[in-house]
Amino acid sequence: MVVVMNVGAPEPQIQAVIERLNRYGFDVHRSSGVQQTVLGAIGVKPDFDVRHIKVLEGVADVYRVTEPYKFASRSWKQENTVVDVRGVGVGGEEVVVMAGPCSVESEEQMEASAAHVAAHGATFLRGGAFKPRSSPYSFQGLGEEGLRILRAAADRHDLRVITEVMEPAQIDVIYPYTDVFQIGARNMQNFSLLKEIGKTDKPVFLKRGLSATVDEWLMSAEYVMAQGNPHVILCERGIRTFETYTRNTLDLSAVPVVKAKSHLPIVVDPSHGTGLRNKVIPMARAAVAAGADGLMVEVHPDPANARSDGPQSLFFEQFVEMMRQIRLIADAIGRTVRAPQRVSV
Amino acid sequence: MVVVMNVGAPEPQIQAVIERLNRYGFDVHRSSGVQQTVLGAIGVKPDFDVRHIKVLEGVADVYRVTEPYKFASRSWKQENTVVDVRGVGVGGEEVVVMAGPCSVESEEQMEASAAHVAAHGATFLRGGAFKPRSSPYSFQGLGEEGLRILRAAADRHDLRVITEVMEPAQIDVIYPYTDVFQIGARNMQNFSLLKEIGKTDKPVFLKRGLSATVDEWLMSAEYVMAQGNPHVILCERGIRTFETYTRNTLDLSAVPVVKAKSHLPIVVDPSHGTGLRNKVIPMARAAVAAGADGLMVEVHPDPANARSDGPQSLFFEQFVEMMRQIRLIADAIGRTVRAPQRVSV
Amino acid sequence: MVVVMNVGAPEPQIQAVIERLNRYGFDVHRSSGVQQTVLGAIGVKPDFDVRHIKVLEGVADVYRVTEPYKFASRSWKQENTVVDVRGVGVGGEEVVVMAGPCSVESEEQMEASAAHVAAHGATFLRGGAFKPRSSPYSFQGLGEEGLRILRAAADRHDLRVITEVMEPAQIDVIYPYTDVFQIGARNMQNFSLLKEIGKTDKPVFLKRGLSATVDEWLMSAEYVMAQGNPHVILCERGIRTFETYTRNTLDLSAVPVVKAKSHLPIVVDPSHGTGLRNKVIPMARAAVAAGADGLMVEVHPDPANARSDGPQSLFFEQFVEMMRQIRLIADAIGRTVRAPQRVSV
Amino acid sequence: MVVVMNVGAPEPQIQAVIERLNRYGFDVHRSSGVQQTVLGAIGVKPDFDVRHIKVLEGVADVYRVTEPYKFASRSWKQENTVVDVRGVGVGGEEVVVMAGPCSVESEEQMEASAAHVAAHGATFLRGGAFKPRSSPYSFQGLGEEGLRILRAAADRHDLRVITEVMEPAQIDVIYPYTDVFQIGARNMQNFSLLKEIGKTDKPVFLKRGLSATVDEWLMSAEYVMAQGNPHVILCERGIRTFETYTRNTLDLSAVPVVKAKSHLPIVVDPSHGTGLRNKVIPMARAAVAAGADGLMVEVHPDPANARSDGPQSLFFEQFVEMMRQIRLIADAIGRTVRAPQRVSV
Repeated sequence: MVVVMNVGAPEPQIQAVIERLNRYGFDVHRSSGVQQTVLGAIGVKPDFDVRHIKVLEGVADVYRVTEPYKFASRSWKQENTVVDVRGVGVGGEEVVVMAGPCSVESEEQMEASAAHVAAHGATFLRGGAFKPRSSPYSFQGLGEEGLRILRAAADRHDLRVITEVMEPAQIDVIYPYTDVFQIGARNMQNFSLLKEIGKTDKPVFLKRGLSATVDEWLMSAEYVMAQGNPHVILCERGIRTFETYTRNTLDLSAVPVVKAKSHLPIVVDPSHGTGLRNKVIPMARAAVAAGADGLMVEVHPDPANARSDGPQSLFFEQFVEMMRQIRLIADAIGRTVRAPQRVSV
Repeated sequence: MVVVMNVGAPEPQIQAVIERLNRYGFDVHRSSGVQQTVLGAIGVKPDFDVRHIKVLEGVADVYRVTEPYKFASRSWKQENTVVDVRGVGVGGEEVVVMAGPCSVESEEQMEASAAHVAAHGATFLRGGAFKPRSSPYSFQGLGEEGLRILRAAADRHDLRVITEVMEPAQIDVIYPYTDVFQIGARNMQNFSLLKEIGKTDKPVFLKRGLSATVDEWLMSAEYVMAQGNPHVILCERGIRTFETYTRNTLDLSAVPVVKAKSHLPIVVDPSHGTGLRNKVIPMARAAVAAGADGLMVEVHPDPANARSDGPQSLFFEQFVEMMRQIRLIADAIGRTVRAPQRVSV
Repeated sequence: MVVVMNVGAPEPQIQAVIERLNRYGFDVHRSSGVQQTVLGAIGVKPDFDVRHIKVLEGVADVYRVTEPYKFASRSWKQENTVVDVRGVGVGGEEVVVMAGPCSVESEEQMEASAAHVAAHGATFLRGGAFKPRSSPYSFQGLGEEGLRILRAAADRHDLRVITEVMEPAQIDVIYPYTDVFQIGARNMQNFSLLKEIGKTDKPVFLKRGLSATVDEWLMSAEYVMAQGNPHVILCERGIRTFETYTRNTLDLSAVPVVKAKSHLPIVVDPSHGTGLRNKVIPMARAAVAAGADGLMVEVHPDPANARSDGPQSLFFEQFVEMMRQIRLIADAIGRTVRAPQRVSV
Repeated sequence: MVVVMNVGAPEPQIQAVIERLNRYGFDVHRSSGVQQTVLGAIGVKPDFDVRHIKVLEGVADVYRVTEPYKFASRSWKQENTVVDVRGVGVGGEEVVVMAGPCSVESEEQMEASAAHVAAHGATFLRGGAFKPRSSPYSFQGLGEEGLRILRAAADRHDLRVITEVMEPAQIDVIYPYTDVFQIGARNMQNFSLLKEIGKTDKPVFLKRGLSATVDEWLMSAEYVMAQGNPHVILCERGIRTFETYTRNTLDLSAVPVVKAKSHLPIVVDPSHGTGLRNKVIPMARAAVAAGADGLMVEVHPDPANARSDGPQSLFFEQFVEMMRQIRLIADAIGRTVRAPQRVSV
């Protein structure tokens, strides 16, 4: 921690700050410049609240110099983490695609979706069984029956399953059906949930909260990792800004920023990031170009009648086109996107 | 819902939109101006996703004209709601004060706090037993033992208890000890929690999320109310903006805005709203002047050694000063703040 | 400047950074902790771009420890500045009120406004002659004829004049008519204008830009002061956030923040800060309660037919009511608002 | 304009609103639904302030349905505009690259820069002679001498010149030297400047303000176009958000949004958008992938000693690498980037 004193702060104020730092257990290096005194407080206390010092008399500013997280940081682990999801690596050379409808609605809908996305290069099937909806009057998901349908459709097409968990009590219900637990943006700081999920052994897909800084996001990853689960995949899905044309502002700069701060893989969700179908393909291309390790997109056999998020879901033919385009982009930057599967049908 | 077509949108596009609206069950009123056609879609579907229409060809924009919430709205209930908390009304003429430390730490700390805040006019004792901390390495609260201490201290000084609930599983544990369930800002859209809390019969104190619009906040109140619990108190505690001097930007304009949109009482928390002790008193004054129905403030017998949020906690003498000042402000606008109690000690 | 190296940064990286700092003219104090090396760079270079160091290999973060401004800072001048405007002090015990219509429209309109606001305690008359309008098709002001009308109306009622200057070429035109030059929010970083205005000897009223941090705002004040004009009054008028119910989000916490960082007086404009007439009075009260040195409000004899900003202009009787209320609030915090004038009419 | 009345608004309130609309010159279509009355106000008044209606009693909300701009809108001109800059088209199939140092510093620096960027496929040379700096103590540019150096270097390598104009008085000075006038982000709403520049016949490069919505940005373009200059090129360069890792948040979704709303070309500036050299290349790739018509990047022969913005300037070899990568990306989406020139040296 670095403590900067006011210009001209009198000696007794400086001494009082040093004493206080000592009392909190820090060693102090003092460095008095022409104008200002700067105090370096040495000692590893990752969760010390720097505002304790900020409110003291004569203090101009305080900077925390150690990152508040450990396991999530690039300094703790230098090489990129590749999360293995039953044989599919997230964070390696391949840019993975996670696709499917917002909500699981029926056997037919999921079979059609799974067959289509698998045929065109996706390796994960997404679909919600427990839905966090901003209105209490909206469709809340099929629950466990939805999980069964999702798993079966994925298995028929050799896809991995990713689905959202909303509260600790759902973990046991979802566990047998999923390969990856998704934590939604609104739950990014649901610490009870993060702790419980950290006790499981399955990969966790952690969406960035609408107003979360990169540091807070990595801190939430730390919550999971501190419990013993290192398999965290980050997902950028847009932040809240003053601009309202798009539902959120997709922050693609977060991709290189996260790559510098952390070893964890990062996926981009252009469907939630923009909220409108016709913005999804350009932003999917941009995400891959920026260096994302994967894409999560919503695809639906009949978007106009989807029970949730239809307007941001791609039509089947748009998904094919998106895959074709990102394959070229990936190639241009030395990465790969899975080729379409030869289908015997 | 109002659908605005592009300038010069050709007739077939307009017809296609009308057909689609009919298919979704809306009656359509068409009004063709000099430049543009505007379609009014009549029919009560509070949770219809307007983006279904926004993505159609030829559509310039779509506006939802009905509020997405019902029970929380001023149009549903015209007169102000006064939430009764065992004889203390929140939302009436009296500006209530909820005070106490961030976390319950010990019997002594809570007794000292309760005695002090009660003597100077607070009617609620606050204190956390289950703490949502952004670091997994920080103090997480005393749990049920903390609740017991909190309740006992409050009872000795005739204070109401308010404490935070973080997940559905904690509701039963907390219920016997508290008078009001607090939902923290990070859980404002934890829909599982909102639903469960809506099934209880105790008042709910709903903090605004850091990046929540007023509409989303009222929608979360609706979640609680739709389950049958109408006793919701709103709490503004700062939103996230680009300015970083203060931890958050306290949005005091939300007070008159909420008063216009909703009948629910609104309390302001200047401690979290600013994050720094020396900004608390001016913003507490401003909140009362803006028309808030109450204040929630952090007070601690020894802020420098508080286990959480010490730097934003008031010293005892500052609390006395704050109460004195807001009493004058309340008086100036025709409201009241409870007088200090005569103490026999 | 403080430079924090990555955890485990190798010695050659550290040496390279030290060398570079030396080359830029800094003395370096090295302090190696258990985990990390921190370098203190000593030397006064207020405009050094810290990103030069941030991009070097092995550097985790860099903090500027000296404020980038000098004359505007509290450390340069400890006591509050009271700007004297022909006998009326801004920044002293009295909370001043600047009132009048958005635009000067006619002799009659200004005479009515001046008479009314003067009678009820305002000491400044506001009114725009050159209007910055977001649409090129909107009323752009009466120009010099407007200035003449404004000055005459003010003089008849012993009011000071404040009016906006939009470009360097207007300074000479406006100079003879005004007492205070107003710089609008959109021009807060119009550096050409700031420099020219800094060469005049009249007080400058500097509105905060919609997305300006407090530091950037004070930096713009520094631009004016560095040219030799120390008479700067700051004005908070709302910042841009994601919330859209109000036109902007009035950041009242800026009042105590500015008071701590700077000696300059700060005025609040609740008309632009909220954009809607019925939010003006509560926020005016809140501003005074928060410690503002003055208010700028729009008042119009016939808001429904105002040529600009009518919807946020107060009716005459609302202005009287606002003055009555803020007089009580000011009194509650030991300040004053001028009493209504006895009028012989 | 669409006016939505409150649920249960009494008939007299509705009548009062209709009357007022009539008085303002609108025809009114009334449509009374089950719950609410909606009024369509017909009449073309692009600059009518809708808040006049919003503040009336019984009004729930008001929506402007016509875009406030005309010449800048896609509905006014359906096909894409290609701005011709002495034979180089901006907005066509080719993705143009504008490169060079932040400030013009010397003959040698500009010659080296021009030779390098031209050799590798840039078609425009950028460089500032009048610099808007946030500190009054920073380098303010070489002025007219800088313009001469810039023009000469560009001419030797057949490059077009783009340079910033900060105030109306500079237009005549800059005119003979430049091919494109750049308006900086801080001047996006400097309406005096926009009007004057609109009277010239040279292309205008209009950067988006830090907190400008897409609508406000297009409105500023309208200011220029309304004066008779249709040659406007838009430039996204990052918006201000709560995230501070990058200097600004580059809003790449603005590319498809602008393409839908307007016919004007849009260029992206990843140097200012991120503020750090090592984020420039990934974001440049992403911008091209998202569909941008061009890139503006800062390149300097010796970034460590640049007099401004060195830390975000690319090294020469990084520029070559960026050009190589974006050429592949452009190719993947069916566009082109100029090939490196065969150089005889």
